[in-house]
Amino acid sequence: MSNPPATHAADRLLAAIESKRAPVCVGLDPVAERLPLSVGEMNRAGIPDMNPLVKYCVAVLDGVAPHVPCVKFQSACFERFRMPGVAALGWLIKYAHSLDLMVILDAKRGDIGVSAEHYAAAVFEPVGPESKDSVCDWVTINSYLGEDGITPFLRKGHGAFALVRTSNPGGDAIQDLELKDGRRVAEAVAQLIAKIGNAHRGKSGYSALGAVVGATKRQDASRLREWMPHQIFLVPGFGAQGGGVDDVLRCFNSDGHGAIVSASRSVTYAFERDDPKWMEAVGEAAARFADAIGSAVGMRR
Amino acid sequence: MSNPPATHAADRLLAAIESKRAPVCVGLDPVAERLPLSVGEMNRAGIPDMNPLVKYCVAVLDGVAPHVPCVKFQSACFERFRMPGVAALGWLIKYAHSLDLMVILDAKRGDIGVSAEHYAAAVFEPVGPESKDSVCDWVTINSYLGEDGITPFLRKGHGAFALVRTSNPGGDAIQDLELKDGRRVAEAVAQLIAKIGNAHRGKSGYSALGAVVGATKRQDASRLREWMPHQIFLVPGFGAQGGGVDDVLRCFNSDGHGAIVSASRSVTYAFERDDPKWMEAVGEAAARFADAIGSAVGMRR
Repeated sequence: MSNPPATHAADRLLAAIESKRAPVCVGLDPVAERLPLSVGEMNRAGIPDMNPLVKYCVAVLDGVAPHVPCVKFQSACFERFRMPGVAALGWLIKYAHSLDLMVILDAKRGDIGVSAEHYAAAVFEPVGPESKDSVCDWVTINSYLGEDGITPFLRKGHGAFALVRTSNPGGDAIQDLELKDGRRVAEAVAQLIAKIGNAHRGKSGYSALGAVVGATKRQDASRLREWMPHQIFLVPGFGAQGGGVDDVLRCFNSDGHGAIVSASRSVTYAFERDDPKWMEAVGEAAARFADAIGSAVGMRR
Repeated sequence: MSNPPATHAADRLLAAIESKRAPVCVGLDPVAERLPLSVGEMNRAGIPDMNPLVKYCVAVLDGVAPHVPCVKFQSACFERFRMPGVAALGWLIKYAHSLDLMVILDAKRGDIGVSAEHYAAAVFEPVGPESKDSVCDWVTINSYLGEDGITPFLRKGHGAFALVRTSNPGGDAIQDLELKDGRRVAEAVAQLIAKIGNAHRGKSGYSALGAVVGATKRQDASRLREWMPHQIFLVPGFGAQGGGVDDVLRCFNSDGHGAIVSASRSVTYAFERDDPKWMEAVGEAAARFADAIGSAVGMRR
């Protein structure tokens, strides 16, 4: 992981999954209100003190790294603290890389043409003296703006997961609309992603353009899998949002490859705030999660 | 403008438009390569020196403030410089407010539930000692995730422009698909926006939930106007992107209200980089722009 741009992003992610024998990702969405009491309170009235949040994230990364190949940071949780938040995010990405974790930045960016180029620079380019380890490997993007909002993110060595079918209740309003030709909107997006992604496939056959497909949409997963055989699916919604093992299995290709299942709160907040052994609880939750999915796809037994 | 949350965001924006007699907005998308030479070069190898970029933006704000009611900052242009970029953006928003300009942050954020709440905090909440003038009045958002990705941004005194029909060529791939019931996807999004926005209308009748409708999509504007009578349209694509006065007029209601036309490069880069009078050129371009649109809608004669 120390030199992200060297290898194709999909090949690197699949190799990392193989090495941990678990196609899973732990999402970090740190919020002041849920931090374990032992890391201290953030100063929310004055200049934010990021130390408690950073301490918490470091312990989570330490706890999950033995079990999972990849972590996902929710950008909004850092952006809301402005400068110290941005600084903490860059530092934590670098720390995650030092633990040999792949890093997805869940930023859901999307703009057109030259603005998309700026966003790609914002998420993939180290600034000034920053290390190249302080930028993410993959980013989540929004595909509503079409191809010119997507391709700028497909930079050498990096990848992007485009929103296709989101796990939230409100997603149906647009994504599930039926088109004249019988497809759903999400299927049309899937086809677009497959088409654009085809020019960006690695040695594994998988593309640097992946797709976000929520675990809570089991009725759609198999069909989307057919439209996008070469996309890695990032599958949120497992655990706290209600998706189960059966649901996420439909997001994999028949060989048990091609998806990475993400869990956030069910792992990273697997404790009471006053539990002195909260770190162990996070590690154990990550181990259980990796085991459940790794076994289900036949990578572990 | 010194107390943004006091009044409904749509009412404030319409009052600002009325006071300048021009429903226009100037977009600032500052890039190192296009700055006037007289502001100096940004240090692009080491820690970014934001001074040239800030000096340029201050002069642009000074130049356009007498003519236009509103400016729009492209967030990506600042985010790419990480911490100093975020600091510069907050400072420039505050400076724009001191000139009585309304401020739109073009951030195109969009996420679900609690993450959307974090993004709303990131764009609308001052952090620590920051002034409430250092956060934007309006933000652009992406509506692909549906209602639970939208309502968190409708905070008291603030507003959001949801992407409905974007001005870029690639936008057609999804937005122009025909649904089984004959509508286009963009029309379905428009209906969703109208429905959600209805509960957020101000004294003017207009909603704190507006819509982005590109000037280059003239064939769609009238229909979208019908679906969304109470939305303020933010209309990018005028000028450099090819939209003309006739195109943008279709985005207004028949009384000449209900839209704000945005121009960026045609105003903010209306000079050669070595022109010592570049500031005057920007002011003149803003005056011409305000006059062209203000006259076309009958606010000026």
